[in-house]
Amino acid sequence: MIKKAAASLGLGVCLLLAAALPACRSRSSYEDVARRLLVRGLVDRGAFTVLEKILAAGPRLTGSPQAEAAVAATFELLQTMGFDNVHLEPVQVGRWIRGGPEEARLTSSPGGTIPLDICALGGSIGTPAGGVTAEVLEVRSFEDLRRAGDKAKGKIVFFNRHWDQSIPETFAAYGPMARQRDQGAVEAARAGGLAALVRSASTSLDDFPHTGVMGYDPGTVPVPAAALSPKSADRLSDILTHDPTARVDLRMDCRTEAPVLSSNVVADISGTEKPQEIILLGGHLDSWDLGAGAHDDGAGCSQAVEALRLIRSLDLRPKRTVRAVLFMDEEFGGTGGRAYARSGRRASEKHLAAFESDRGGFLPLGIGLGDSASFPRFKKWEPLLRSVGLFWLRPGGGGVDIGPLAQSGTILGGLVPDSQRYFDVHHGALDVAGAVNPRELELGAVALAALAYVLAQEGV
Amino acid sequence: MIKKAAASLGLGVCLLLAAALPACRSRSSYEDVARRLLVRGLVDRGAFTVLEKILAAGPRLTGSPQAEAAVAATFELLQTMGFDNVHLEPVQVGRWIRGGPEEARLTSSPGGTIPLDICALGGSIGTPAGGVTAEVLEVRSFEDLRRAGDKAKGKIVFFNRHWDQSIPETFAAYGPMARQRDQGAVEAARAGGLAALVRSASTSLDDFPHTGVMGYDPGTVPVPAAALSPKSADRLSDILTHDPTARVDLRMDCRTEAPVLSSNVVADISGTEKPQEIILLGGHLDSWDLGAGAHDDGAGCSQAVEALRLIRSLDLRPKRTVRAVLFMDEEFGGTGGRAYARSGRRASEKHLAAFESDRGGFLPLGIGLGDSASFPRFKKWEPLLRSVGLFWLRPGGGGVDIGPLAQSGTILGGLVPDSQRYFDVHHGALDVAGAVNPRELELGAVALAALAYVLAQEGV
Repeated sequence: MIKKAAASLGLGVCLLLAAALPACRSRSSYEDVARRLLVRGLVDRGAFTVLEKILAAGPRLTGSPQAEAAVAATFELLQTMGFDNVHLEPVQVGRWIRGGPEEARLTSSPGGTIPLDICALGGSIGTPAGGVTAEVLEVRSFEDLRRAGDKAKGKIVFFNRHWDQSIPETFAAYGPMARQRDQGAVEAARAGGLAALVRSASTSLDDFPHTGVMGYDPGTVPVPAAALSPKSADRLSDILTHDPTARVDLRMDCRTEAPVLSSNVVADISGTEKPQEIILLGGHLDSWDLGAGAHDDGAGCSQAVEALRLIRSLDLRPKRTVRAVLFMDEEFGGTGGRAYARSGRRASEKHLAAFESDRGGFLPLGIGLGDSASFPRFKKWEPLLRSVGLFWLRPGGGGVDIGPLAQSGTILGGLVPDSQRYFDVHHGALDVAGAVNPRELELGAVALAALAYVLAQEGV
Repeated sequence: MIKKAAASLGLGVCLLLAAALPACRSRSSYEDVARRLLVRGLVDRGAFTVLEKILAAGPRLTGSPQAEAAVAATFELLQTMGFDNVHLEPVQVGRWIRGGPEEARLTSSPGGTIPLDICALGGSIGTPAGGVTAEVLEVRSFEDLRRAGDKAKGKIVFFNRHWDQSIPETFAAYGPMARQRDQGAVEAARAGGLAALVRSASTSLDDFPHTGVMGYDPGTVPVPAAALSPKSADRLSDILTHDPTARVDLRMDCRTEAPVLSSNVVADISGTEKPQEIILLGGHLDSWDLGAGAHDDGAGCSQAVEALRLIRSLDLRPKRTVRAVLFMDEEFGGTGGRAYARSGRRASEKHLAAFESDRGGFLPLGIGLGDSASFPRFKKWEPLLRSVGLFWLRPGGGGVDIGPLAQSGTILGGLVPDSQRYFDVHHGALDVAGAVNPRELELGAVALAALAYVLAQEGV
């Protein structure tokens, strides 16, 4: 009763103010659509169903058979779901292989020999068959390393910058950790080091190493690079304090093979009036190979697909096309996103807005959309997001996959969920289906569906 | 650089507007305190440390040795932490014991005999030694049962109301599920049933039964009551469709013993100017016995303790007393909360405001405080909560433990975290430390510390 009364009151106020606020009626009707999307989503939990189908292909390292299995499975799924224009778009991608066992052993006096929990970083070369065995130089930053002069020569360089727990927004704290990981091997080699061991970019203090992409510099000899679990990093640091001559024996079998052909997966709900104008929802289908890639980024893919399903389930007929794109190869640098933006198919299309969901399938808090110039046009849709449980719509958004669309004037956006848990699992063995809550995942799909629908009706 | 510029701008605007907005300077300074609480909390993660100490006592069923161990451990911890006025307050509590193995077996034709996942509900009597074996009547509601007339006679009544997934706020959906659990045995007995099997109040479809308190009516013969896991409930329902004569054999060894003496645990930061005026932060120390009681309510207790630690760690000296109370026996109906409110110690104290955290240690979203009459006085503190990551301050709040304080005019409040995951674990085996994220837990403690401190300075 209370709910009904409140709803009537809301409608009454809306009608009374209709003359003064021309947008009131349409906003109210879109909020009604949004609430129906919400109920449908929470009851069906379709995003989690899609996620399970994606994860069934296995860890989807770019260029791997599992990634191709995920392409095939999602292509078939999207056809079965009856979307329009379901197709694959080719992407040539690199192929990095983790290979056989990877291990690091630490020998110190009087500690003896203990194993360290490591994983090769994506793109790293392997070690020679006999491994790399050397003393270790620990640094907390690249500046530390430079100050160390020639002390790194002939050693394994251990980059032990810690996660800055004081930063509330974990993506802000991730930046310096990712740079340590990305550039560690280059900096180590420049200093004369034989390999790089990098503390994992993790919010947890546990035994799981977190991988991620790293790079080499054309002018520097490549050296192997691996991530240490946070606890192994602490252990190594502790032992080095007591025995600076402790040695690590590092063995990794990873390698890069010839590029292979892969695909982005695309599906539409074609617009009834302006089908060539597109609102894009995207995630990336590839993942790292240590876990299942559930949050990163099975979640984003499943939300894009589920948003389309939700729109269709209410028999909404958007005027403009709403598209889901499951991008290939975000993790090794975004060849999928660039191939999509450059494809000849884009010539007859205009992408009005593109949203990326690549921050995990946690409770959605807000959506970033546009920049300071364009955002004022969108601010009015904040109540729509609030009606499905989000807290804000702000300028911001974008991502590796949709970034290349900005050149053609596409407004970029992105879903922003709770970030506190993401880097506990990110790029590691704990990123599995059990870490995803079906209701939280679904709420993200609902928000994307609601906003995509309203932009498909109203334009940008 | 960008952050510094923004901060300077904020301060400049504040000074410019100081004449027009007298509260601006103090709000700004409180927000500075709040941000320092935030950084300190995120770095130290003290709430999780306290949580681990509480959980070390084991599952803390009211009246159990483990609950008493938790009382002793937290009393010692609070003394060690150097708080003021650390003491125990006596509470006489009931003592219900789950006893030996509890089991239910379903025999159908042609399904044979299969086990069902059950757990006794808190307060239930056991079955006779030979168990209760009977056919099953499935109903979805108490109305269903009444319509069934005498069909329940001599049967086990199976209450199979499902969780309403369409309701975004899970606490709203919990209400009818809790009533089914609370009242199932009474309704079954009134209809002539021999026992009640109740579908668990769970958002998950899994194999874990969720317990919780249930009641008997003085005028009705008590019958045993157990919760079925959601999957076992589905299995039973499915088999009954095919074989309405299927029989369940239910065996439970639970019993109620004589009341025992237990305690609430209290610690203060004594106010420097008005020590008799109190801002209370509370959770409940008792838990159910199937998991560890991590979210329910080790989380709330740890946040109350951590809020005090945070305030002291910044060397803040609140004018009024900030108190943490770890209440005993929330789960069996709140004897601890009532004993606290009625204690003679309260005669010399005035509780201005009391906050309860008993919705899990998930990402905090907002705080409820006061009612429509009192809330306008508090609305100005919403920016304070926003500065530590929360989204709102609204009227609302209260709870079983602090509710009895309302009679003496205390303003009631409560922390409101993300509710989506709570009922996956609530009252079940999955409510363990691993389900709690240390950063999310801490953010709740920070918000409570910030608001408690400002109310201790400014009053209500």
